[in-house]
Amino acid sequence: MKIISKTINIATKQRIQFIDITNELEKFVKESGVRNGICLVHVPHATAALILNENEIGLIEDFKRKISELFPMNAGYLHDRIDDNAYAHLASGIIGTSKIFPIVEGELVRGTWQNLLLTELDGPRSSRKVIFQVMGE
Amino acid sequence: MKIISKTINIATKQRIQFIDITNELEKFVKESGVRNGICLVHVPHATAALILNENEIGLIEDFKRKISELFPMNAGYLHDRIDDNAYAHLASGIIGTSKIFPIVEGELVRGTWQNLLLTELDGPRSSRKVIFQVMGE
Amino acid sequence: MKIISKTINIATKQRIQFIDITNELEKFVKESGVRNGICLVHVPHATAALILNENEIGLIEDFKRKISELFPMNAGYLHDRIDDNAYAHLASGIIGTSKIFPIVEGELVRGTWQNLLLTELDGPRSSRKVIFQVMGE
Repeated sequence: MKIISKTINIATKQRIQFIDITNELEKFVKESGVRNGICLVHVPHATAALILNENEIGLIEDFKRKISELFPMNAGYLHDRIDDNAYAHLASGIIGTSKIFPIVEGELVRGTWQNLLLTELDGPRSSRKVIFQVMGE
Repeated sequence: MKIISKTINIATKQRIQFIDITNELEKFVKESGVRNGICLVHVPHATAALILNENEIGLIEDFKRKISELFPMNAGYLHDRIDDNAYAHLASGIIGTSKIFPIVEGELVRGTWQNLLLTELDGPRSSRKVIFQVMGE
Repeated sequence: MKIISKTINIATKQRIQFIDITNELEKFVKESGVRNGICLVHVPHATAALILNENEIGLIEDFKRKISELFPMNAGYLHDRIDDNAYAHLASGIIGTSKIFPIVEGELVRGTWQNLLLTELDGPRSSRKVIFQVMGE
């Protein structure tokens, strides 16, 4: 069985930003040579998230607005006494920081409109890490 | 090690609908013969989701109302200029499209009230795919 | 390949409560001896959840308030005719009941501020189960 991991680092530029990492994901799976198994993607941060959806410019703005509506900044959070990013922690905790995909006959299984979006919630940051890991044969 | 995948196709009939696929999941795991390992379920769509919870008729309606409240249709979304289903993309991206279960001693580990619900968010659709995959021994 | 599972039982004391189980998770992974692979954590309950985020006392209260705001109790839910915990089912179904981590070179990969929080949504309960499972080499 093959178990292969890779970490990539990404600099973010905006407070809330969506960075499409589908190409990096696909490339990693191809290079692993795994024909059948799983691919796990994990972001080891408490103020970022992973969203799997369509990378359409209007929809990306809709996601940004929806996140800001569900998790507004500076809404009297207790954690803001320490830092000013409680909204980002809440969004990260509820949206989640990992995704997992089947790999079947050498192909990562995802829908046409399922792009993997690294979701920065408290940027800019010089280095956000994403861990890719395949396990299979 | 065994790695076995199966895709099922489901037709949906309503705009927002919950289809219980627990029996299909349990049957797949039993037939795989895997005694210990994991079972991954993935929906390769950007306007559908997977929810694991109780299949009680009142609660299903509560889920429908809650999703419609958190992600209302036609709320001035930019993506609606292209299509009319931005709310479904937002709900899919935030709720998520995969679930993973441990398999221990031949049994899929899930709670009594944890039924697997394919969640249609932009139906009706003639074919929604669900991929089941086991990996284990 | 190693596939090892363990179930722990936790008593909860409040209606909504966050119990940090990071130490149990880390201990399980260390004792498994797995150097590379995955660790799955699953809660087999329909009125509990798992959240991965910072265990800071103010933020924990912020999470409690946010969950109560998004999923208020007794808001005219149909399921409340049977039980009084529809809000807890809705929160569990949308937040989710499992987390999965890569294990790389003997270390569970998680961020400094990513603590694993068993999220009781309908306590107190005498026994909430958490299943840990590692798979790898």
